[in-house]
Amino acid sequence: MPVQRADARRNYARILAVAEAEVAERGADASLEQIARVAGVGSATVRRHFPNRRALLDAVFHERLEALRDRVRELADAPDPRAALLEWLRAVTAYAASARGAAVALTPDAPVSAEEAHMNACAAKFTEAADPLLRRAARDGAVAPDVTVADLLTLIAGIVWATEHHQDPAAEADRLLGLTVAGLSPER
Amino acid sequence: MPVQRADARRNYARILAVAEAEVAERGADASLEQIARVAGVGSATVRRHFPNRRALLDAVFHERLEALRDRVRELADAPDPRAALLEWLRAVTAYAASARGAAVALTPDAPVSAEEAHMNACAAKFTEAADPLLRRAARDGAVAPDVTVADLLTLIAGIVWATEHHQDPAAEADRLLGLTVAGLSPER
Repeated sequence: MPVQRADARRNYARILAVAEAEVAERGADASLEQIARVAGVGSATVRRHFPNRRALLDAVFHERLEALRDRVRELADAPDPRAALLEWLRAVTAYAASARGAAVALTPDAPVSAEEAHMNACAAKFTEAADPLLRRAARDGAVAPDVTVADLLTLIAGIVWATEHHQDPAAEADRLLGLTVAGLSPER
Repeated sequence: MPVQRADARRNYARILAVAEAEVAERGADASLEQIARVAGVGSATVRRHFPNRRALLDAVFHERLEALRDRVRELADAPDPRAALLEWLRAVTAYAASARGAAVALTPDAPVSAEEAHMNACAAKFTEAADPLLRRAARDGAVAPDVTVADLLTLIAGIVWATEHHQDPAAEADRLLGLTVAGLSPER
């Protein structure tokens, strides 16, 4: 980021905080005009920091996805590889359920628009970062060897989408993740 | 259905067949005008049979959901309760993956529009019909006793949504259903 005056930095931080809240509430369709209004700045100021919606969503998701990537590193040496993986899956699910647009960001499959193409790039970086956690659980026999991080993220994205209108989406998504981890009907 | 002349019945059957194909391709947003064009009838004829989009979707999904309900009855006395349930889940997944709007129809959770409220009613009837199949598998110890048909349908709807843009959605949805049935990491 180029050198900014203190008020520009404060504006940026405020716009980003408002954008995070708006995207969490309305998903990837959050209005730039509404964000400017709530942040108490002009639309031109929003556009100076974020030339388009894509740049704004990048910033919104970047910070949280970085936090979830950091979590992978923290969990990399946890004593129980299975528990470490499950803790991470629950953290990803909780985040995706809290931030509506994030379910799209986590879906690794082919995009239908330029905006989703960008999301897809996010998902790819994320997938790569989480791989060591999954591989370690697989070596430990806790996960079938052919399961990929993309599979895990696709299942989570689907759960989050399908529970979006539930009265308590985060709790319901967590419960259905639990069923998916345990298996609806594991081999006897 | 009131008594109809033979040509009106033929028109109805043709419009319904075209509507099924259009909804499978474009989902619940399929255009009534496009359906009239492909069926080779006027928009007024389509509207005479289906006064609104909701009536049309009702007819489109009704027949297939009936077929899946009939499948429950056929499977009710199959020798292996687990195999019977899994066969039915695969049939539902295959149908939902082939007919885009159906993933919404299968999601039991709160609707966001009048159209989805109707879908929700479909899902409720469907849920009730499938319950004996699930209960039999649960009595046999193949499924945890607290799992509901709504859980199964919600997970399938999520899988279908999240694989919609995959290059082979039906195959990918079936594979992820298999992971969900087996469990990502069942208790050891």
